[in-house]
Amino acid sequence: MAVVLGPNRYGKAEVRLVHVERSTPVHRIRDISVTSALWGDFTSAHVDGDNSHILATDTQKNTVHAFARTGGVGEIEQFGLRLARHFTTATPWVTGARLEIEEYGWQRIEVNGSGHDHAFFRSGGEHRTTTVTVDRDTAHVVSGTAGLVVLKSTGSAFRGFIRDDYTTLADTDDRVLATEITARWRYTSTAVEFDTLFPSIRATLLETFAQVPSSALQQTLYAMGREVLTAHADVAEIRLSMPNRHHFPVDLTPFGLDNPNVVFQVADRPYGRIEGTVLRNDVPAAESAWSTFPGGG
Amino acid sequence: MAVVLGPNRYGKAEVRLVHVERSTPVHRIRDISVTSALWGDFTSAHVDGDNSHILATDTQKNTVHAFARTGGVGEIEQFGLRLARHFTTATPWVTGARLEIEEYGWQRIEVNGSGHDHAFFRSGGEHRTTTVTVDRDTAHVVSGTAGLVVLKSTGSAFRGFIRDDYTTLADTDDRVLATEITARWRYTSTAVEFDTLFPSIRATLLETFAQVPSSALQQTLYAMGREVLTAHADVAEIRLSMPNRHHFPVDLTPFGLDNPNVVFQVADRPYGRIEGTVLRNDVPAAESAWSTFPGGG
Amino acid sequence: MAVVLGPNRYGKAEVRLVHVERSTPVHRIRDISVTSALWGDFTSAHVDGDNSHILATDTQKNTVHAFARTGGVGEIEQFGLRLARHFTTATPWVTGARLEIEEYGWQRIEVNGSGHDHAFFRSGGEHRTTTVTVDRDTAHVVSGTAGLVVLKSTGSAFRGFIRDDYTTLADTDDRVLATEITARWRYTSTAVEFDTLFPSIRATLLETFAQVPSSALQQTLYAMGREVLTAHADVAEIRLSMPNRHHFPVDLTPFGLDNPNVVFQVADRPYGRIEGTVLRNDVPAAESAWSTFPGGG
Amino acid sequence: MAVVLGPNRYGKAEVRLVHVERSTPVHRIRDISVTSALWGDFTSAHVDGDNSHILATDTQKNTVHAFARTGGVGEIEQFGLRLARHFTTATPWVTGARLEIEEYGWQRIEVNGSGHDHAFFRSGGEHRTTTVTVDRDTAHVVSGTAGLVVLKSTGSAFRGFIRDDYTTLADTDDRVLATEITARWRYTSTAVEFDTLFPSIRATLLETFAQVPSSALQQTLYAMGREVLTAHADVAEIRLSMPNRHHFPVDLTPFGLDNPNVVFQVADRPYGRIEGTVLRNDVPAAESAWSTFPGGG
Repeated sequence: MAVVLGPNRYGKAEVRLVHVERSTPVHRIRDISVTSALWGDFTSAHVDGDNSHILATDTQKNTVHAFARTGGVGEIEQFGLRLARHFTTATPWVTGARLEIEEYGWQRIEVNGSGHDHAFFRSGGEHRTTTVTVDRDTAHVVSGTAGLVVLKSTGSAFRGFIRDDYTTLADTDDRVLATEITARWRYTSTAVEFDTLFPSIRATLLETFAQVPSSALQQTLYAMGREVLTAHADVAEIRLSMPNRHHFPVDLTPFGLDNPNVVFQVADRPYGRIEGTVLRNDVPAAESAWSTFPGGG
Repeated sequence: MAVVLGPNRYGKAEVRLVHVERSTPVHRIRDISVTSALWGDFTSAHVDGDNSHILATDTQKNTVHAFARTGGVGEIEQFGLRLARHFTTATPWVTGARLEIEEYGWQRIEVNGSGHDHAFFRSGGEHRTTTVTVDRDTAHVVSGTAGLVVLKSTGSAFRGFIRDDYTTLADTDDRVLATEITARWRYTSTAVEFDTLFPSIRATLLETFAQVPSSALQQTLYAMGREVLTAHADVAEIRLSMPNRHHFPVDLTPFGLDNPNVVFQVADRPYGRIEGTVLRNDVPAAESAWSTFPGGG
Repeated sequence: MAVVLGPNRYGKAEVRLVHVERSTPVHRIRDISVTSALWGDFTSAHVDGDNSHILATDTQKNTVHAFARTGGVGEIEQFGLRLARHFTTATPWVTGARLEIEEYGWQRIEVNGSGHDHAFFRSGGEHRTTTVTVDRDTAHVVSGTAGLVVLKSTGSAFRGFIRDDYTTLADTDDRVLATEITARWRYTSTAVEFDTLFPSIRATLLETFAQVPSSALQQTLYAMGREVLTAHADVAEIRLSMPNRHHFPVDLTPFGLDNPNVVFQVADRPYGRIEGTVLRNDVPAAESAWSTFPGGG
Repeated sequence: MAVVLGPNRYGKAEVRLVHVERSTPVHRIRDISVTSALWGDFTSAHVDGDNSHILATDTQKNTVHAFARTGGVGEIEQFGLRLARHFTTATPWVTGARLEIEEYGWQRIEVNGSGHDHAFFRSGGEHRTTTVTVDRDTAHVVSGTAGLVVLKSTGSAFRGFIRDDYTTLADTDDRVLATEITARWRYTSTAVEFDTLFPSIRATLLETFAQVPSSALQQTLYAMGREVLTAHADVAEIRLSMPNRHHFPVDLTPFGLDNPNVVFQVADRPYGRIEGTVLRNDVPAAESAWSTFPGGG
């Protein structure tokens, strides 16, 4: 028996960066958080404290800053690919890189009916995400959205589930359905129109959530994934995590009142956690595009 | 010398409630968090553990639920006033009540170009607030907005400040100005059009932030307050808290690059904290409308 | 009628600083967050954008750093007083200063039965606080603790409260009582033994919580305050905020089980919010020591 | 080509539970958060909205409550195993279950020199964790600790790393090293002494952090993992995530002061993210024990 070093990686997390495109008086801004993770031959650093194979995380941060200047930020997926390809070719030792980027949305402040040139407000908790993984000759792009909170005030049922010794929940034909969508979809290639696809996929997710009568949050999840893949040939696979944020009708009978699904108590915890994948059965799997680390990226 | 009980109050915090107005197939929702605080003659509970003067916080929660059913939620200010007047007349002992309400915004999901009847998504981290204070015969309404994050990519300078032994900051004629606006304004009466005034005041805050060239965040804050009061006769006073979220231009010279205000590092901490009041000099002060407790409301 | 500038202040928030006392191989560390707020004659900055009276918040941050070097950090109250006195005398325009300091605790890592010289771990979410207010010739120190979470598994009742149309809560003679204590106490002078008093007051709070049979959280709060003042002549007044974190016994009867106060569901929201002051009736009030701003300090 | 359902699972997240062991007047409490996730044959729910294979998440919550009553909580690993085995045998359709449990520590309040019978305070942000995975005939237990924040004020260097066009960081022989340890270790079997092993492994992690002179955080991480495995034959593998929380010496030269590693600015973001695995080379891998879902468990 021997104790040995297993998989490892390192990088700089949450480099917070705003890029202002100011070539005309009508400024455009991109506001991002960039996290890098590198892997390769780092055994000497771990075992001997010899850092000669280590590209310092401070250097990684500097590289993000410099690349934002030389090429702008542009599509976060392309920015991630540029960085990942740089990191995996800059040294003999780094063989793989993952770039995770979150982008925060801003809207122009409206003044006298039109958007201001250089004043903006943050448009909500929702943000766009991408995870770009480059490992030697392969590259994968998994993009997504997080923090997209939705609610249906009717059109959701939940009935016919298993009844065992621990079941107390009653069947219902009408409930509030609320969730915070985390969606991540893998593109079939790195050469797609990311900035066009993102709003289209997001719209499909929202429209399907709204339109499909729900017999279970699982059914809604699957329908959302299926519609995204049906409408977007560039998407190979989508993973959805949709916590069920319970809204319980308050029992008002002690006060002589009925409650025909009008007043709901919003619970924080516990919540249901519903997670699922929808994919094309003719596209190769790509587990490396998704792998994560406990407590980290 | 004696040790005595001083000011005290108690209530139920963060009653999370969604109300669905479903009288037609086009549902409307109001999503709120209600916090109550009562004061009056509670000495016996503190000193003797005698609860005969105590309206349980559980009862306060029930009352919020029941009132949402009997009268709907409607304007959060009116909902707060209804509750406050109830609590201050329900018992001989409760003489004052404060109701703090936060309202979270939702937008209809768009399907085929029009808003869906009963499917919604959360519109951002920003939320509308009110603090209603009823104390015997007086009533005050302080409404506001929180979580409104704004940024100007130019049109902001900071120069001419004191230079002492600890000053290293250089004058600048062009910087990014970013802040998260917390605004609270006191209405002159409890009989104003709250749902009309809120979007109008919010628009004035945003427009003024956008349009006023800034020589200091203090100047921007004052202008925002002044314009709100100038345009809205129903506002007696406004208090603004505007943290200066620093965006530092990254020094790219080590990499042979210039940085003409294009790439900014976003700092979390420390941040500037700029707070100020703008008021009419002919309106009576109302400190009770604003008072708070350490660690609480 | 005119619109005018009212009370205002500004400063630097959350200057995060670690000071290492390394005069011997046995290092000592103090880990703090410092927030400054200054007031005085700043009208020209607000109204005209003239910053000639403004001590930049960046300069305030530098001053904190420099003072930590020249005099060390030491007691956070004394560190706050040094800074406040500096800021109120450094310029003709700053007449008042508030320094809020949080201190995070660290313990030595134990190796072979004794504390390590220079390796530490963070001892919990609890932290020590102080708010030092200097306004011309007056100075106040309000110190405290925050994040101190406590629980009694018995010895707490709640009965005999008002029963009205909205009351459903049953009387109980035995419940779990849990809260997160935020305590702030005002010292009678600025010349007391802060580092000695803090652990003593904290111990009194904890012991009293443990020992006093509770008929109401208000009673527990008052007893805790009273004991602090009784045992500490240097404390003029104490304010306690103690949210009631509800632990509900789970109804297990649907599963054929009893639940004699054994299994509790922990609720996040809503929670009770209990706030009160205990003070000496022969000590002058000092509201300026406590005043706060909406959305800020 | 067809669009199909891929991997999916669901459960109840964050069932917050306090169990009081009160068979003697000296109470003991266990305070936990339980998250369940089930997988198996749920295609009909996703594709057809037929819930006949679905064990409702509400039922899962009830089961957690009931099991806490019938058998107590005890070791969180055993509690997770009991629940996982129940869920995977309760129906024909659920073939796998993961139970994630966090346990929050409490200490007795000291009164007159000894611990109180039934009054406790929370001992910090650190918590113990376990993830129990049962999939048909296999069972894995991965336990850990999270939120363990440590700091060394000396004994850490970082030098000899790659210098490329984007490198500005200087070599250093003496820096502050601070991190928040997230450790997860997989036990070789489900029949070990969990409550004995946890404090022993935690102590090894802390001692090694303290004692090993650090040439890189990677080296420290590896040494910590290696020592855990060397000292604990029951551990097959350990994964460590150790963000590098940068403490930068403040440049005080503008104020005529030196700074021999005395005053440090604590940065929030960006931070280094260092992740690694240490394992025995003679133990079979068990990827199913570790797998996660984007946006969830």
